[in-house]
Amino acid sequence: MAEPFPYHFSRRIRATPRSFIREILKVTEKPDIISFAGGLPSPEFLDSAGVARATEEVLRKEGCSALQYSTTEGCLPLRRWIAERYAARYSLEVSPEEILITNGSQQTLDLVARILLDEGDPVGIEAPGYLGAIQAFSQSMPRFCPVPLERGGPDVAAFARVIEEDHPVFFYGIPNSQNPSGITYTEGRRKELATLLDGTETMVVEDDAYGEIRFNGRAIRPLKCDLPERTVLCGTFSKIVAPGLRLGWMCAPEEIIEQAVTAKQASDLHTSIFSQLVLARYLEHQDIDAHIREITRAYAARCGLMVSLMEERFPKEVTFTRPNGGMFVWLTLPEGASSMELWRRAMEEKVAILPGTPFYTDGDGDRGVRLNFSNADPEKIRTGIGRLADVLERYLGSIA
Amino acid sequence: MAEPFPYHFSRRIRATPRSFIREILKVTEKPDIISFAGGLPSPEFLDSAGVARATEEVLRKEGCSALQYSTTEGCLPLRRWIAERYAARYSLEVSPEEILITNGSQQTLDLVARILLDEGDPVGIEAPGYLGAIQAFSQSMPRFCPVPLERGGPDVAAFARVIEEDHPVFFYGIPNSQNPSGITYTEGRRKELATLLDGTETMVVEDDAYGEIRFNGRAIRPLKCDLPERTVLCGTFSKIVAPGLRLGWMCAPEEIIEQAVTAKQASDLHTSIFSQLVLARYLEHQDIDAHIREITRAYAARCGLMVSLMEERFPKEVTFTRPNGGMFVWLTLPEGASSMELWRRAMEEKVAILPGTPFYTDGDGDRGVRLNFSNADPEKIRTGIGRLADVLERYLGSIA
Repeated sequence: MAEPFPYHFSRRIRATPRSFIREILKVTEKPDIISFAGGLPSPEFLDSAGVARATEEVLRKEGCSALQYSTTEGCLPLRRWIAERYAARYSLEVSPEEILITNGSQQTLDLVARILLDEGDPVGIEAPGYLGAIQAFSQSMPRFCPVPLERGGPDVAAFARVIEEDHPVFFYGIPNSQNPSGITYTEGRRKELATLLDGTETMVVEDDAYGEIRFNGRAIRPLKCDLPERTVLCGTFSKIVAPGLRLGWMCAPEEIIEQAVTAKQASDLHTSIFSQLVLARYLEHQDIDAHIREITRAYAARCGLMVSLMEERFPKEVTFTRPNGGMFVWLTLPEGASSMELWRRAMEEKVAILPGTPFYTDGDGDRGVRLNFSNADPEKIRTGIGRLADVLERYLGSIA
Repeated sequence: MAEPFPYHFSRRIRATPRSFIREILKVTEKPDIISFAGGLPSPEFLDSAGVARATEEVLRKEGCSALQYSTTEGCLPLRRWIAERYAARYSLEVSPEEILITNGSQQTLDLVARILLDEGDPVGIEAPGYLGAIQAFSQSMPRFCPVPLERGGPDVAAFARVIEEDHPVFFYGIPNSQNPSGITYTEGRRKELATLLDGTETMVVEDDAYGEIRFNGRAIRPLKCDLPERTVLCGTFSKIVAPGLRLGWMCAPEEIIEQAVTAKQASDLHTSIFSQLVLARYLEHQDIDAHIREITRAYAARCGLMVSLMEERFPKEVTFTRPNGGMFVWLTLPEGASSMELWRRAMEEKVAILPGTPFYTDGDGDRGVRLNFSNADPEKIRTGIGRLADVLERYLGSIA
C-alpha cells in the first residue's frame, strides 16, 4: 500500500484554535436540547418577507449589475447609510470613504489582524474576550495581553499596566454589552481609558456588535468619538437584520481603510454585491428603528426572565452579570467548580451552556459560563434554567 | 497642531501588491472607453430573472433559515451538486465532505495560503501567472519560483528544475484556458507533470475557473484525477452563473478541508447562506448545460473575431495565443517594446488593455499584454481592435 501523502500545515493555522462554539453547536443542534450555548438572533426577527420584497425590487431595477463583479470598498448607498447612522446615533461624523463593507464583522477582525499584526506583536484584549476575535487574531500569532473585565469595564490599573509595559499594537474590546460577559463600559471608564491611551501609539479596535441592542437608557458614545484617528470601529448587520447575509463593516481613518482594501482584494475581491444591494434596499423601505425596538424589547424580556429565574433558583455561590443589552449573560462558578464538568452534566439533562475557557487567551476561565438569552423563547428559558438550577445544585453539592 | 497618529502596518500587508487590474479598471470605467482590460463575464448571461425566481422560492420555502447563521462548510445541496458535476464532467469521484464553499475562488486561494504557507516558503507558479493568486499568496510572503508557460503548458525542464531544486510547497496553475495566457495544458503535458510530481512532497493547487468555458473538443481531465491526494482543486460559479454572488469552492482531501474550515471560521465564519440557497435553487431549476453552451458559443465567437482581426490588422512582430476557451488572449510585443507605453498610448485612443508585468513575480513581462474578449460585444471588438492596430503600428514604427 502506498504511503499517505504527508501534509505540512502552516505554523499559523496550527496556532489557530478551532471555534469551540461551533464544535459545541454540532452537539447541541439536536431538537430535544435546550441551548443557551449559541449566539443566534431569535428567528422571528429575521424578516424573510421584507428581504423577499427588497430582492425582487433590486433584481427588477438593477438587473444584472446586482450579479456582476463590483468594488472592494462596497456599495455606496450602504456605506452612506452607516455613516448617517453614526451621525444620528452617536454624533460621530465619518464619511463613506471611512467605511469598508465586509462579510460580517468576523472579516473586519480578520482584516484588522492582517494589516496591523506581525508574529509576536502584543495585543491587548479583555478577559474574558470574544472568542471570534481570539481566533481571527491568532492567525497572526500575536502575544495576547489580557485585561480583566470588572463591572464597569476593563480594570483601569491592569489596563494602564498593559499599555505602559507591553505597548500593544491595539487594544480590542466590546464596550457595549460585551460578548461573553454582557458588561457595558461606563461613560467614566471610557474617558479613563481614552486618557490612558492618549500620547501612546496603541490603537483601539472597538467592536460595536451590540450597541443597537440596548435595553434602556441612552446610548453611550463609542471610544472612536474621543480617539477618532486611532480607532477602528467594527459594525455588523447580523444582530439587527440577518446574520445569513454576512454583512458587516469597518469604520476607520482612510489610511487604514486603504490598507484594508488591499487585504480584502487579496482575501475575496469584494463582498457579494447581490446581498449588499438587497440590504440597502431593505433599509430604505424598512422602519429599522421600529424593528430594532421590537428586537430589543423581546431580548430585554428574555434577559430579565433569565436573570430573575437565576436569582430565584441558582445556588447563591453562583454569581452572574445583569446585562443592559446584547445577547449574553456571564456566570461565575464558585472556587473548585469547573464549567467543563458543568457542561457535561448539563448536557445529560439536555441543556447546553458554553464553558468559559475559550474566552481566555491564557487557559484561565474554567469558572466562567456564557449563557445566550436571545435565541430561546420564554418557555424554553423557564425549562432550561430550571434544569440548570437542578444540575448546579447537585454538582456544587457534590464538591462542597 | 497635533501630530498625525503614526500608523504601523504589518510586514505582510506591505508585501502585498495592490491589484493593478482594479486600479486600471477605475480609469477604464468611463463609458467612452472600449475596455479589454477587465475580466468580466458578458452582462447578457447574468440571468437576473432566473435568480429572482430562485430567491422568491427560497424565501417562501426556507423562510428565516436562509437568513440565520449557518455552517462554515457550506450548504449540502450545493456541495452535492459540485461533487456530481465532477463525476459527470471529469469522472472525478469526490464526496461532499471534500468540498468547502467559499466567497469566490479568490477566497479559496487565500485559504490555501493560510493553511499551507509560512514566510519564505517556496511556491511554484506559472509565468505569466494569475495576479489574483499572486496577491493572495503574497500575504504569506512566500518565495515565488516561476515556471515559464509555453504553448502546451508549463515548460517541462523548468518545471522539473523547480520541483527538484526548490522543493515548492505547492505548484499553482490553471490548466484550462489559463488567465492571463489563454493556454490549455495538453493531455500529454499533464501526464508529464504528474510523473514529475510523483514521489515528491509538492502539492498542486489547480485552479479550474475556466474548465466549463471550452470552445471545442472534449474536456481534459484535471491533474486532480491523477494526483488526488495532493491536489487542491479550486472552482467558481463566477464564470457560469454570476460573479456578484461571490460563490466558489475548494475541493480537496478531508484533512485539507478540515484545516481550511478552521481558517475560514477565523476569516468570516461562513459564506452567505442566502446566496448559497439561491444558487442551489437556481441550479436545480435551470438547464445549466444549455446556459453554459450559450455562454461558450458567444465567447468562442468573440474570441474568434478578435483573433482574426488581430491576424489581419496587427503588425507581424506582435504574436498572440489562440485560446480554446476562457476569457483571455495574450499578446507578446517585439523586443524593445513596452506594454506600459502601449497602455498609455492606447488609453489616448480610448481603448484599454492590461500590461503584462503584474502577472510576473520577478518584474518580468513588460512585453506581455492581456486582452479580454468576453465582456465587449462584437461591434466594440471590431472598433477596439481597429484602434489598437493603429496604435501598435505607430508605436512599433516609432521604436523600429
